[in-house]
Amino acid sequence: MVKKELPGRELNPGDRVRVDEDGLSVEGTAMKSEGSSLVIKLDNGYNIGISRERIKKITILGRAKQEREKKVEVKQRKDLPRIRILHTGGTIASRVDYRTGAVKAQYSPDEILKLFPELKQIARIESEQLLQLMSEDMEFSHYNVIARAVAKAFDEGVTGVILTHGTDTMHYTSAALSFMLPLKGPLILVGSQRSSDRPSSDAFFNLMSAVLFITRNPGFKGVAIAMHRSMNDDDCWVIPGLNARKMHTSRRDAFRPVNRMPLAIVNPIKRKVKIIPNEANPPEKLTLFRDVKVGLLKSHPHLLPEELNAYKGFDGLVIEATGLGHLPIHPTDRATEKHKEIFRLIKELSSKMPVAIASQTIYGRINMNVYSSGRELLDAGVLGNLTDMTPETAFIKMAWLLSNYPVEKVRELYGKNLVGEISGRSLPEEFLI
Amino acid sequence: MVKKELPGRELNPGDRVRVDEDGLSVEGTAMKSEGSSLVIKLDNGYNIGISRERIKKITILGRAKQEREKKVEVKQRKDLPRIRILHTGGTIASRVDYRTGAVKAQYSPDEILKLFPELKQIARIESEQLLQLMSEDMEFSHYNVIARAVAKAFDEGVTGVILTHGTDTMHYTSAALSFMLPLKGPLILVGSQRSSDRPSSDAFFNLMSAVLFITRNPGFKGVAIAMHRSMNDDDCWVIPGLNARKMHTSRRDAFRPVNRMPLAIVNPIKRKVKIIPNEANPPEKLTLFRDVKVGLLKSHPHLLPEELNAYKGFDGLVIEATGLGHLPIHPTDRATEKHKEIFRLIKELSSKMPVAIASQTIYGRINMNVYSSGRELLDAGVLGNLTDMTPETAFIKMAWLLSNYPVEKVRELYGKNLVGEISGRSLPEEFLI
Repeated sequence: MVKKELPGRELNPGDRVRVDEDGLSVEGTAMKSEGSSLVIKLDNGYNIGISRERIKKITILGRAKQEREKKVEVKQRKDLPRIRILHTGGTIASRVDYRTGAVKAQYSPDEILKLFPELKQIARIESEQLLQLMSEDMEFSHYNVIARAVAKAFDEGVTGVILTHGTDTMHYTSAALSFMLPLKGPLILVGSQRSSDRPSSDAFFNLMSAVLFITRNPGFKGVAIAMHRSMNDDDCWVIPGLNARKMHTSRRDAFRPVNRMPLAIVNPIKRKVKIIPNEANPPEKLTLFRDVKVGLLKSHPHLLPEELNAYKGFDGLVIEATGLGHLPIHPTDRATEKHKEIFRLIKELSSKMPVAIASQTIYGRINMNVYSSGRELLDAGVLGNLTDMTPETAFIKMAWLLSNYPVEKVRELYGKNLVGEISGRSLPEEFLI
Repeated sequence: MVKKELPGRELNPGDRVRVDEDGLSVEGTAMKSEGSSLVIKLDNGYNIGISRERIKKITILGRAKQEREKKVEVKQRKDLPRIRILHTGGTIASRVDYRTGAVKAQYSPDEILKLFPELKQIARIESEQLLQLMSEDMEFSHYNVIARAVAKAFDEGVTGVILTHGTDTMHYTSAALSFMLPLKGPLILVGSQRSSDRPSSDAFFNLMSAVLFITRNPGFKGVAIAMHRSMNDDDCWVIPGLNARKMHTSRRDAFRPVNRMPLAIVNPIKRKVKIIPNEANPPEKLTLFRDVKVGLLKSHPHLLPEELNAYKGFDGLVIEATGLGHLPIHPTDRATEKHKEIFRLIKELSSKMPVAIASQTIYGRINMNVYSSGRELLDAGVLGNLTDMTPETAFIKMAWLLSNYPVEKVRELYGKNLVGEISGRSLPEEFLI
C-alpha cells in the first residue's frame, strides 16, 4: 500500500462530515483535532476520536458557517414571578465551541431566553454567573459562594432560585445547601446530561420543569433537584435535595430519590405539576462550611489497616460499611491480627474524632443492633445507628457539623434529624424508584 | 415512687413474653440479658433492648422448652441429581441459640433436610462446612478455600454446587469465584436476610430456588446469586455473579442485577424456572488470590491529597470516580494547589501501579473521552475506560489480576472482557431493575 497524506487535514472545525473506516461509518461535526486522531462530535453529544491511519474516506456534508452572534434584547413581562438563575458551570450552561473543542458557558438572561424562549411566558428570568467549573471540582468553599448568592436573591425579592450545576456532584451540593440555607422559597438545582446546544439535550426540559415547580409551588421552602424521570421526554421529577443521587453515568434519568418519595412530577410540555405533599424543614439561620478535613472510606473485603491510618489527622470520617453497618473487625482463622488491628484503629479514630457509618448498599437504614459487628462498633463510639442517609448526605452532614459545632456537639447532633435528612419511617415503595 | 427490684430477672432465655412500657407493647422471645436492658428477639428476627427501668409489666406467654435434638436419619433418593451445599456462615446457615443469644450454624445434610424437607424430592443433598464467619470478615484467602472446595465437588461428580454465604459481601465473592473457577456446572450463591429459624426467613425460598435452577439448568457453567426478587414470596431471581449488588440494608429483595439482565426467574412454590438465555464464559484454569494490597477509594467533593497518599505502598488501586469517570483534578479559583497536587499524585500512583476508574453512580459505563477530566486521567495512564463493571467487581478484578499477572499484563488485561465482566452493549431495561 502506498503511504498517503493523513486524511482529515482539509477539514475546518464545525464542518459537517461523514467518516468511513473499515465497516464503520460515523457522521457528526468536526472538532479541532491536531494529533493522530480526527475528533468528531456525534449528534448525541459525545466526542469520538478516529485514528487518521484507519480512515478510508471523508465526505464533507456541509461547511462550518461563520458564526455571528445577534444581540437580541428580550422583553420580559413585569407581572410574572421573578426567578433568578445562578450558574455554576457544568454541561447544562454550556455549548460546544467547534473552533476549540472547548465547552463554553452562556449565562446572560438574553442568551438563556434566546435558547429557551418559552420561559418568558411564565416567569421573569434574571441570571448571574457565580462559578464556572465542572462539578467534580466543587469544594466546600464553593458551597459558601452559592449559599450567599441564594440568600441575597431571596433578600432581593425573587420568588425562587434555580441553580444550574454539573451533574456529577449535584446531590452533594443539594445536601450541603439543605443544611446551610434558611430559605424563603424554592431553590431548585438543575443539570443536564447533554450540552444545551445538542438536539438531544435535556437542558430545556429540566429547566422548564424547575420554573414550573417554582411558579406553582412558591411556598415550598426547600432545596430540590429537577431532572428527567425516564428516558423519554415525558416528565421530570423534583427530588428532595437531601435524598437525591446520581445513579447512572450517562442516562438523562440518572437522578433518583433514595429512601424518599419525589416532591413532584412535572410535565413541562403540558405544563402540568403534580405535587406530592411533603414539608421542607429548612434551618433557621445561614451557616457556612469551613475547610475541615473529612474522609469517606468505603469498606471492602481484604480491607487493610493502612487505609484507616490515612485519616489520623482528619477532623471526621464517614465509613461506607457493608449491609446494616458492618466492618471486618472479627478475628478469623485467616485474618486474626489484621482484623483486630482494624478494630483497634477504628476505636482510636473514634476516640479522637466523630466516626460515622453509612451503608454502601445506598438504600435502606443502618441498624447496628442486629449483629455483633454492629454492636461492637457502637460500643467503640461509632455514630450513625438507625440513620437512613445516603453516604453522600452523611459525608456532607459530617463536614457541615464539623464546620459549625465543637466535636462533642457533632457527636450529639450527627444521629438526630435536623433538616429532614433522617426519616423515622421507611416506605416499601421508596426502593429503586 | 418506691424503688422496686428491676424487672425481667424471672425470665429464662427462650421464654415467650410480652413487655409493656409507657405506650409501647412488645412481644417476642427473651434472650440472655445481663445488663440494664432486657433483650427481646422480635418475630421479624431483630433484637430490641428495653431498659429495665422503664418496664411496666412483663407477661410470660410461654416458658422455653428444654430443647431435645432428635437425630433423624433422612433417606435420600439415589436417582436424583447430586447437589453439594458448602457453608461459609452468615445468616442463612444460622439459628438463634436463646440461651446465649448467639447465632449458631447448622450444616449437616440431616439438619438441612430436617429444616427443608421439600429439598429431598428434587435433589440428593450433601453438605460441608467450609468456613464459619460473617461475610464482612471475608478475605481473599477465603476465596481460595471456597474455590478449591467447589472444584473438588465437581471433580467428585456433583451436578451443581450451592454456596451459603452472608449477604454483606456475597457479590464480591461471586465476582471473585467467576474469575477463579473453570466450572463444570452451576455454582449458585445463596444468602438470607433473616435467620433460618425465623417464620419470616427467606432462607428456604432462596435455597429451593437455587436447587431448582441447578436441576433445570445443569449445563450452566457459571457463578450466580439466587435471592428474592420482590418483597413478596412470589419468586426469586438468579443474577450473574459478576453483575450482582446488595442494594438495600435489610430487604429480602436487596440483591439486584447491575447493567445486566437476570439469568432466570424461579418460583419455588410452583417449581417453575424461566431461563433468560445468557451464556456463561468461565475461565479455563483454576487460579487463586494472593495477599495483594488493593485499595478502593471513593472520590468526593473536597477530596484531600492525604487520601491518595495512603495507597503509595499498594499493589493497585480502584477509584470510585463521579459520573462518567471524573476526579477533582482541575485548578479552580478556590482549590488551585490542592487539585494540582491530587492530579500529580494520581499520575505518580498510576506510574507505579495499575490505577483504575469505576463510577460511584453504580449503574452505567465509564467514558473518559467526553470531558477533559476523563481525558486527562487517560493521559495519566488511568485504566477502566469504557468498562461497565460495578466498583465491587472492578476491585475484585484488580486484585485477581494482580494475584496472577505481572503489572504490565494487568494493565493490558484490566479493560478487556475476560469472563463476561465487561459487556459491549447496554440495554435500557438494565437500569434499576
